[in-house]
Amino acid sequence: MKRLLDSDSLRALARGCAVLGAGGGGDPYLGLLQALQATEDYGPVALVDIDELPDESLIMPCGGIGAPTVSIEKIENGDEGGRLREHLEFVTGGQVAALMPAEIGGSNGLLPVAWAARMGLPLVDADGMGRAFPEVPQVTMHLAGISPSPAVMTDERGNLIVFRAISGHWMERLERAAAVEFGGAASSTEFPLTAAQARGATVRNSVSLAIRIGEAVARAQGRPVDALIAEVNAFRLVTGKVSDVERRTTRGFVRGSVIVEGLGEDTGRLIRLELQNENLVALERGKLLASVPDLISVLDTETADAIVTERIRYGQRVTVIAFGCDPVWRTERGIEVAGPRAFGYDFDYVPVEELAGARA
Amino acid sequence: MKRLLDSDSLRALARGCAVLGAGGGGDPYLGLLQALQATEDYGPVALVDIDELPDESLIMPCGGIGAPTVSIEKIENGDEGGRLREHLEFVTGGQVAALMPAEIGGSNGLLPVAWAARMGLPLVDADGMGRAFPEVPQVTMHLAGISPSPAVMTDERGNLIVFRAISGHWMERLERAAAVEFGGAASSTEFPLTAAQARGATVRNSVSLAIRIGEAVARAQGRPVDALIAEVNAFRLVTGKVSDVERRTTRGFVRGSVIVEGLGEDTGRLIRLELQNENLVALERGKLLASVPDLISVLDTETADAIVTERIRYGQRVTVIAFGCDPVWRTERGIEVAGPRAFGYDFDYVPVEELAGARA
Repeated sequence: MKRLLDSDSLRALARGCAVLGAGGGGDPYLGLLQALQATEDYGPVALVDIDELPDESLIMPCGGIGAPTVSIEKIENGDEGGRLREHLEFVTGGQVAALMPAEIGGSNGLLPVAWAARMGLPLVDADGMGRAFPEVPQVTMHLAGISPSPAVMTDERGNLIVFRAISGHWMERLERAAAVEFGGAASSTEFPLTAAQARGATVRNSVSLAIRIGEAVARAQGRPVDALIAEVNAFRLVTGKVSDVERRTTRGFVRGSVIVEGLGEDTGRLIRLELQNENLVALERGKLLASVPDLISVLDTETADAIVTERIRYGQRVTVIAFGCDPVWRTERGIEVAGPRAFGYDFDYVPVEELAGARA
Repeated sequence: MKRLLDSDSLRALARGCAVLGAGGGGDPYLGLLQALQATEDYGPVALVDIDELPDESLIMPCGGIGAPTVSIEKIENGDEGGRLREHLEFVTGGQVAALMPAEIGGSNGLLPVAWAARMGLPLVDADGMGRAFPEVPQVTMHLAGISPSPAVMTDERGNLIVFRAISGHWMERLERAAAVEFGGAASSTEFPLTAAQARGATVRNSVSLAIRIGEAVARAQGRPVDALIAEVNAFRLVTGKVSDVERRTTRGFVRGSVIVEGLGEDTGRLIRLELQNENLVALERGKLLASVPDLISVLDTETADAIVTERIRYGQRVTVIAFGCDPVWRTERGIEVAGPRAFGYDFDYVPVEELAGARA
């Protein structure tokens, strides 16, 4: 066991998940409340390394699916994780040994902790993205050739669906349609895998990383944004205020854009963020500053708390940062699955450090 | 065994299914082609009475789901029934002993024959409606309190979904959303049941009835419409021509209306049919002539072939008939599930024979 996830580490984890969510994954505050309550009721959750698990151990990647704008109003009832596990065990014939966040970003980095606490199961120190992405097959397990099936989805009412799709694309379509029918958000598990598979098919140590990020911010004296930038090796894109927000919930996603107007030394600059659950691209008068799969996060300039896309509003004083994604997303296959073109943009991916270098 | 379903009986069955479909259940011609091919390749299917099966025998009600306008263009690949059976057996732990049409109407009265032939399984002489209805819980099994879960759905590509819904209403919502995502049509099984349950929860002998209807029409000398009316004890609502069709495929259903203008002794009369997959109501200048759950069928005036809603077109010479549904639909619960108010109409159900008596 690497550590016990108690209330202190969960608060740090929530802060880190917000940053790693790149605006998405759902509001970590809701996931934190659930994780705190569950660990208070059932005891802290053990965080384990995948290497501590026997090869054949079944790991259940899990979290919420849908539009974050919905999930901050339509919340879980707590039983979802148990139901997902029960049916995943039934259809696979295996026994779940540990849970894993499908994505470390946002509330989805915390929800599996709440579920693991209720089940008395450990959480593995890894996830399927090293961040958050909007679509089901945008996970490292997909890049590694692991099947998304069987997937299980449930809602707070107790409905349950098992999906066996012919591809990641069809899994996304079918799960999205069901999540929309459930009201725009649901809970799910996809890409069930063994510990042996997980060793080479996940982003390792991402739960620890999120906690470390949260702790660095909490520890910072005076300038938490600077501490955060140093911790994740980020580039500051702009400091200013939110001057326009366009956001709509459509077909199971939040889509829209945010304009940040520079203040202080950035006066006169206008940065546009475009989003689909997560912040996808940052543009300055048409010029690319950063794009998926790299992470773009919007921070409260004063507290360095990352603001999820559904909470952004006019007038907020923010600092927009960008930093490099896990190297697996920079491979040819990674860029194909989660690069700008995967989201409909007609330009190639350029790593954020090259874009920053070109500006300097 | 009651009989073997060979090509002669299948042709008669197709004719009868068209009449019992009340416009819905899909074009029987496509189901007939599949049933003829399958019985040619794998041998005829045994039609059995439910009483011939041991109490615990698992019966799989099945058929197509979706908009008939879609299903005449996006057709099955043949493997669907086998896949439904395989997964139903897996999730129930049982072995399917026989198939049953979920609805006897339209193509859905024939598709289970094609699947049964490929599996070497018998077909039970019963169905869940005694006609066709558009929505999943509009079956006699639902009236009898049998759970719709587990339901299994698949498409021609090989995707597969298992649903466990908290109610018939949620089963309808979830299956409809999936059918829409599949392109508007799919194959499914719901309300799995044992022979013991089926004895009191289905419309018995409806396959035989459909064959008898088809044979009566085929045998008729000169006036097949009259022979059909006598066979099903129907009321002739109007004879005329189709003068207007409004039809749209929306949210997984065909919806619209048809105007039939009287000819001959009916000159001057205008009958309006409103439809959701099936013909729901027949109105004459606002006055009700017939409504669900009674059956309204549109016949070719010359051949007495029933015309499904997606094949109705301007200029067809038709005779519209209506006849009484199975008595179970005239119970309080039956009317609640499939009467006019279940389809959004603001009037009470009146049996077709009373409406006809009031006119006479």
